[in-house]
Amino acid sequence: MGSPFQKVEGAVTAPQGFRAAGVAAGLKPSGAPDLALMVSECDAVGAGVFTTNQVKAACVIYGQGILAQQQPVRAILCNAGQANACTGEEGERNNAQLANWVGEQLGIPAAQVLTASTGVIGRQLDMPKIQAALPQLVQSLSTEGGEQAARAIITTDLVTKSIALETEILGHPVRVGGISKGSGMIHPNLATMLAFLTCDAAVEPHLWQQILHKAADLSFNQITVDGDTSTNDMLLALANGKSGIPTIQPDTEAAQILAEMVNTACIHLAKAIARDGEGATKLLEIQVRGAVEDADARHIARVIASSPLVKSAAFGNDPNWGRVAAAAGRAGIPFDSRRLDIRLGDFLLMQAGMPLAFDRQAASEYLKGDPVTFTVDLHQGSGQGTAWGCDLSYDYVRINAEYTT
Amino acid sequence: MGSPFQKVEGAVTAPQGFRAAGVAAGLKPSGAPDLALMVSECDAVGAGVFTTNQVKAACVIYGQGILAQQQPVRAILCNAGQANACTGEEGERNNAQLANWVGEQLGIPAAQVLTASTGVIGRQLDMPKIQAALPQLVQSLSTEGGEQAARAIITTDLVTKSIALETEILGHPVRVGGISKGSGMIHPNLATMLAFLTCDAAVEPHLWQQILHKAADLSFNQITVDGDTSTNDMLLALANGKSGIPTIQPDTEAAQILAEMVNTACIHLAKAIARDGEGATKLLEIQVRGAVEDADARHIARVIASSPLVKSAAFGNDPNWGRVAAAAGRAGIPFDSRRLDIRLGDFLLMQAGMPLAFDRQAASEYLKGDPVTFTVDLHQGSGQGTAWGCDLSYDYVRINAEYTT
Repeated sequence: MGSPFQKVEGAVTAPQGFRAAGVAAGLKPSGAPDLALMVSECDAVGAGVFTTNQVKAACVIYGQGILAQQQPVRAILCNAGQANACTGEEGERNNAQLANWVGEQLGIPAAQVLTASTGVIGRQLDMPKIQAALPQLVQSLSTEGGEQAARAIITTDLVTKSIALETEILGHPVRVGGISKGSGMIHPNLATMLAFLTCDAAVEPHLWQQILHKAADLSFNQITVDGDTSTNDMLLALANGKSGIPTIQPDTEAAQILAEMVNTACIHLAKAIARDGEGATKLLEIQVRGAVEDADARHIARVIASSPLVKSAAFGNDPNWGRVAAAAGRAGIPFDSRRLDIRLGDFLLMQAGMPLAFDRQAASEYLKGDPVTFTVDLHQGSGQGTAWGCDLSYDYVRINAEYTT
Repeated sequence: MGSPFQKVEGAVTAPQGFRAAGVAAGLKPSGAPDLALMVSECDAVGAGVFTTNQVKAACVIYGQGILAQQQPVRAILCNAGQANACTGEEGERNNAQLANWVGEQLGIPAAQVLTASTGVIGRQLDMPKIQAALPQLVQSLSTEGGEQAARAIITTDLVTKSIALETEILGHPVRVGGISKGSGMIHPNLATMLAFLTCDAAVEPHLWQQILHKAADLSFNQITVDGDTSTNDMLLALANGKSGIPTIQPDTEAAQILAEMVNTACIHLAKAIARDGEGATKLLEIQVRGAVEDADARHIARVIASSPLVKSAAFGNDPNWGRVAAAAGRAGIPFDSRRLDIRLGDFLLMQAGMPLAFDRQAASEYLKGDPVTFTVDLHQGSGQGTAWGCDLSYDYVRINAEYTT
């Protein structure tokens, strides 16, 4: 991709001054790791993007409150297996207790601890199990623990998702690390989507929040349908300044470089979620060009990427451009359908609103690959955007029919 | 249901003065009937509700133009197997030719003929086959032909859908008949949804259009997600006055009764589409109460009914109220989640935002039935609405992965 950013090892512990760990507290019946902790050795600037669902888990309400205070934060605790959503005041008390316990163990104020949960809705957290596991979790914290944390936050995910990038800003090497969890379902983020970023740049707090918001729009929000967020979705980011660079200010070249690196990390993590769809066999990339605005293009791309008919056709290796055209048309963005071009990989399937003859056998072969790219050109302007999804397979139904309440 | 309307036989030929027929023109590879014609013996008032998709089939553009002239109409020709969408100017010329041919055969102006198509997008209509079949189609027209027409408009539907109702208005028996096609998919009307109504009342033209629009909002639009309409969706209605009653005027009791009868017919036809979902094993009915506005309640009901997670859980007989709550919450309508009640049949699963203990075994047994009803009470106001969907099964994926472009 010719990225100016170098991939490095370590996930959320790649940036300086961060430790992480993941242990099995027993929340998952499987006995797999289910409790992760990420800690900065010094005060960090926190930023967050949260679900827009009217039904918010206790950790979402709590995290929004903490970040609204605009004070430094130090740690993120995440459990997998129990969502602590629809659990009322008891759920909120339990969540606050988690922050207290972590604060005590780390010797920092509870208000410097953010929390995240994912899993089954409507059951109270198993507090004794979490309490029992916390000392071991804190003891396990290590500057090599990023991948352990990545493993402890997943639920139905088949693979862990992590990234770490480095670049030079103002003469210093600066790193961003990240982990994410989630499954690219039909409406992807009905399954909780969590992502955590660490960064060793020093960043002006409002700029950090802005960078995170923009990155979410280009990445995690592009594997979702508008407003389709679960009760627990969140993206949290800590920037601790340990790289030693002066604080990055808005409207500077340094800010631009950092934002690009955060975008790249988030797009990587989001695509990994889309690819790891429940039952998915391939990643779909939908590129929309020629819209009036970028936001229009992003929206149309999302609608196509989340169309169950497009996704089913991709699973069946059927070059069904008609479904792509129909999905674009129902996105609610006006365009002239007589100018619509649709490409599948390099195959031009539709031009100026009319289907073309194409090598159906070769196109079907292309669809057996991974990833699969559809490109839609509206020829209305210069707006562009990309969204990602996965195909819809028998296994999606099996997984979701059998998941226990 | 204690309806004041009596069910009668005959579908679209139940009202006086209508004939219909369906024949096999050879558009469907299976050789099943694929060409339907409905004709009023005298001028009728026409009304229509059309897809909002930006990509509109030739018949949609044509029908909107015909009805905009506010002149009497007489006939509806519908073919199944080829959608005549994304077919450019040639498609529009072909569609106009169909109206010409039907007009010639019936001895009426082409401008009195409406057209509808459903099937594969992007191929030109097989005009020779349709032309060859038209004489037989016209000869077959009969006052008993309603069910034949119902059979000729379906595609992946497993069953035909029809209804006819009668009631007394202003001392005369008045009838409404209807047929529909469509499959209750994940986003139901990505698959083309067609419905045709006949009526032997005389109705003031604007009132007839109003009645049809309102009925669509309560029925066909409640088996869909906002804006999720295919390139070909349409609902057409002809009222020919043959019952002999004086023309029904707006804001009268007669108008109210007629509207209620049309609503009842449309809800019946819409539920039949939802129940006949591709791969569906049961009908889901989502009732939302306590919203601020009826439109809010209808919207939330739609979002729940179209949630693939809710649909998968229904297939798996999993009383997963958490998915219902999460779907309600992401509908974009503000409410206080701490007042949310959710019922599955008679089982109260959630009250005031908190899960209740319930007999999970019995609730799962209830889910094996058909239909299955979820009731959501927001406790914010008196707005209410209902939506319908079906469960999501393995067969949905099979059907849509294997459907040929």
